[in-house]
Amino acid sequence: MERIKVEKLLINYKTLEKFKHFKSYGNQELSMLEDLESNIVENDSESPFYGIYFGNNLVARMSLYKVKAKYDAYFEPSQDYLVLWKLEVLPDYRGKGYGKALVDFAKIDNLPIKTNPRINSQGFWEEMGFQKANYEMERDLGENPFIWMPTGVQEKLKD
Amino acid sequence: MERIKVEKLLINYKTLEKFKHFKSYGNQELSMLEDLESNIVENDSESPFYGIYFGNNLVARMSLYKVKAKYDAYFEPSQDYLVLWKLEVLPDYRGKGYGKALVDFAKIDNLPIKTNPRINSQGFWEEMGFQKANYEMERDLGENPFIWMPTGVQEKLKD
Repeated sequence: MERIKVEKLLINYKTLEKFKHFKSYGNQELSMLEDLESNIVENDSESPFYGIYFGNNLVARMSLYKVKAKYDAYFEPSQDYLVLWKLEVLPDYRGKGYGKALVDFAKIDNLPIKTNPRINSQGFWEEMGFQKANYEMERDLGENPFIWMPTGVQEKLKD
Repeated sequence: MERIKVEKLLINYKTLEKFKHFKSYGNQELSMLEDLESNIVENDSESPFYGIYFGNNLVARMSLYKVKAKYDAYFEPSQDYLVLWKLEVLPDYRGKGYGKALVDFAKIDNLPIKTNPRINSQGFWEEMGFQKANYEMERDLGENPFIWMPTGVQEKLKD
């Protein structure tokens, strides 16, 4: 099997054009485009996105952001953790391990991870070793939190 | 046209059974069911859900939660605001004003409202007077925030 390469994506017009092929194109991408157009950010500045190219096509992507330990409401002991969102593989490229490659990439630093999967993708997240977090309304509101924990980390219990 | 009545929904087995007809049935509902089964909450306790019945069928629902002013990162001046999520009308009952009736209900207290719509429902939210919020990554992460503001309230500007 070919090696799948996960790359950090830079904010530029080419990347933002490729983002339009993804279903979850929304406020975040529009905001990046506006920032680029109004020179609030420079071309090729860093983005929270990571992706996989197949030839010239961006076929999979995700966003990752590290939340500082003092804001951690999910894990015990409290620590820096990653929020993962907008994981998406283009329809023609599914079933080839690209989604798993992105999630494996997120796990490399061995930090706990939290995501908010679409209801119909929960099976995928369980295969990736994630588990349903205990839902707490004040914290989770409209989210459907799933978490992954490296060895030695536990889910934070309710007070 | 008949009057549409929006009701506060109580947590009980009957309501939770009806929730299974909604696509967004996830962690939140499962957690409510577990709390009920293990007697952590009493039958008929309060829930954040509001709904519309047509005969004996729950045909539309939403969740509402009031966030305190000190946590407000969206509005100027900072104030209590509502988060609205899981707005959903069952397929056979769409186009009859049930969605609008729920949103109008949320507006009654004249507090600003924030929601995180699915990408393909943004048109509906714009019809309801909501607007795309300026996306801020550290605050919004995987969200696609849309906001509604009563007279005298503005969107908080970036620092």
